[in-house]
Amino acid sequence: MKLKDLYQKNDAKIIFLVADGLGGIPHPNFKNLTELEYAKTPNLDKLASESALGLTIPVDYGITPGSGPAHFSLFGYNPSAVDIGRGALEAYGIGHIMEDDEMAIRANFCTINESKVITDRRAGRIETHEMERIVEKLSSNIRDIDGTRVIFRPGKEHRFVIILKGKDLQDAITDTDPQKEGLTLLPPNPLRKEAEKTAKLVNRLVEAILNVLKDEPRANGVLLRGYSLKPNVENFTDRTGMKALSLANYPMYKGITRILGMDTPDPGESFNDLINYLKSHLNEYEFIYLHYKYADKAGEDGDFMKKVKAIEELDNYLPEILHLRPDVLVITGDHSTPSLLKSHSWHPNPTLLKSLYAPFDGIERFTERNCLRGSLGTLHAYHLLSIAMASALKLKKWGA
Amino acid sequence: MKLKDLYQKNDAKIIFLVADGLGGIPHPNFKNLTELEYAKTPNLDKLASESALGLTIPVDYGITPGSGPAHFSLFGYNPSAVDIGRGALEAYGIGHIMEDDEMAIRANFCTINESKVITDRRAGRIETHEMERIVEKLSSNIRDIDGTRVIFRPGKEHRFVIILKGKDLQDAITDTDPQKEGLTLLPPNPLRKEAEKTAKLVNRLVEAILNVLKDEPRANGVLLRGYSLKPNVENFTDRTGMKALSLANYPMYKGITRILGMDTPDPGESFNDLINYLKSHLNEYEFIYLHYKYADKAGEDGDFMKKVKAIEELDNYLPEILHLRPDVLVITGDHSTPSLLKSHSWHPNPTLLKSLYAPFDGIERFTERNCLRGSLGTLHAYHLLSIAMASALKLKKWGA
Repeated sequence: MKLKDLYQKNDAKIIFLVADGLGGIPHPNFKNLTELEYAKTPNLDKLASESALGLTIPVDYGITPGSGPAHFSLFGYNPSAVDIGRGALEAYGIGHIMEDDEMAIRANFCTINESKVITDRRAGRIETHEMERIVEKLSSNIRDIDGTRVIFRPGKEHRFVIILKGKDLQDAITDTDPQKEGLTLLPPNPLRKEAEKTAKLVNRLVEAILNVLKDEPRANGVLLRGYSLKPNVENFTDRTGMKALSLANYPMYKGITRILGMDTPDPGESFNDLINYLKSHLNEYEFIYLHYKYADKAGEDGDFMKKVKAIEELDNYLPEILHLRPDVLVITGDHSTPSLLKSHSWHPNPTLLKSLYAPFDGIERFTERNCLRGSLGTLHAYHLLSIAMASALKLKKWGA
Repeated sequence: MKLKDLYQKNDAKIIFLVADGLGGIPHPNFKNLTELEYAKTPNLDKLASESALGLTIPVDYGITPGSGPAHFSLFGYNPSAVDIGRGALEAYGIGHIMEDDEMAIRANFCTINESKVITDRRAGRIETHEMERIVEKLSSNIRDIDGTRVIFRPGKEHRFVIILKGKDLQDAITDTDPQKEGLTLLPPNPLRKEAEKTAKLVNRLVEAILNVLKDEPRANGVLLRGYSLKPNVENFTDRTGMKALSLANYPMYKGITRILGMDTPDPGESFNDLINYLKSHLNEYEFIYLHYKYADKAGEDGDFMKKVKAIEELDNYLPEILHLRPDVLVITGDHSTPSLLKSHSWHPNPTLLKSLYAPFDGIERFTERNCLRGSLGTLHAYHLLSIAMASALKLKKWGA
């Protein structure tokens, strides 16, 4: 059955507070505790004792997800059925909403020598304003290639996005980035016969770009990766009925929610900016995604104590969020990022759901091991949204 | 997604120690304890306290599996999607690797009277060397039937295997074994029109065999069951990327792993032989299946204390296995065999996964009821392999 068919509008607010990389595994150097177990989290603990707890599997058993699949699962989509290229994620992330006849490409400036050998994959880490100047130069020199429109969009540092707009574009093309310095730029090759025309077009585009860049001292080369056509994913509101707000600081997460058609403003660089935006716009929405990045960053660094700190800081923000009196508050991760692994992992996310209509598990602390005992059980993350909607009384009875 | 696509090679070793029929149910005559609860297992218990525990469902809720489906599930195959005839299992079990144009048939010698009424379904339980002599006699007298090659292969006691090799063979044919003494041999009948030709061929084969056997005092008849064409199952290494070793004493389990293309040597008759083989070949493999048969045997006999003993003996072997320092050690059953039931059962398997990157549940004993509290939760057995591969860091991140 479709959630939209059961949806009934009401004023209830659902907040998904997503602490990126929240979950961990016991660390032998820290008394075999996880970061969440080690952290002092009085606000989370009090909330947990009044909530339903559980564990959510982002994609599938043993599968470590990237942020894309992990977030689609949070938003109720089975991520195995959603295929979105990195180019599209990047394009949406910098605010470009793709149209049907477009193909997005992730592009990096790099430094090459006279034999087209890459000497610096990041063009000497040029600064954002410098990259913006060069992208502007490309924009004014290259408008189209053989009738296909070319749009250049700045990203951050050495990164930008190229949008091709025209008929019959195909994204099954190999990267031009050899992934290593000391190697030459690769030609874009078609992976299927249908992609031959687009591959030739991309090849001419690279030549045109190199020609414009030839006098640049550092950014005189370009690397292309992750070609993608417009993703074909059902809009979140069409699927659930709910008007949705996405609050995130980082382009990747903005990109994901723009693909789903959520309202995705640019409220600022800090988590505080997100909360302030939420305070003044809560009334306009039924579903709010609120992204907290810092636990993941510390986990990726392998810094146990930094992740503990990030969790404790999140705990400090909690009273402000509770003050908004959401009807349903979910606190979870998109995926785990144990500092022991210094990377995303396959371990289920500790998850908390607070609502008047959710069981009151009475479990005293919000930790991975406690979540195992919670009334939500262990479930795939893409099942969580319907439980949240039900707890907000937004889903009618199914069947007579 | 396919595990092979996420696979990344490393030196980590995964050992699946499969204690056949391990799980049980509380027995009213033994303080309502299970065999695992009753047994003294200091080594398993210590290991359990440092591992992740859980329960695995071999096939589906309430479904009692045979050894075939239960093992496919352990190896990560959804057993409902794998269909392998008993004849093929038997053929692989005795070391015959089937080819595309072959059909395997399980055959038993039996004793019949002059009216072809079966007087002993096991031919007076003839000994293996006697069976081998008669199979040799069949081999030298019957080379082919109407152009289809016939290969006879000895098994154990009164059992042997017949391989037909030729064009357009079909396995939808009825057994010739009426399953009871005092009844006559049944004719092999086609179950579908396409199998008519093969059924006629099998009929002529039975006549030819009876003619060769006519002077044998005991083994003067033959019973055919479980016709099967070559199984169409994806190779384990093609599926997972891992080079795999199978260590088992019994033909059935060797057959299963040969079908999957695992290296399946014949190291000897005892569990000790398997462990010794493992010690000297561990470095050549990434995945090792190690089969311990004796808990199942005792359970099938309905002998509670014998199963307790079998579990205690397994516990004694554990230090030797731990001494090999596998990166991931899984201890589980293929299915449960409660002595109260004297048979396989549908109850989930107690399961333990030890790895640096698995949660440390801190649960003090390895029992069915304790596994229910473990962090692996209750899951289908075919999901376990990907968790083990993830815990050995053999799976890359999926998606950006």
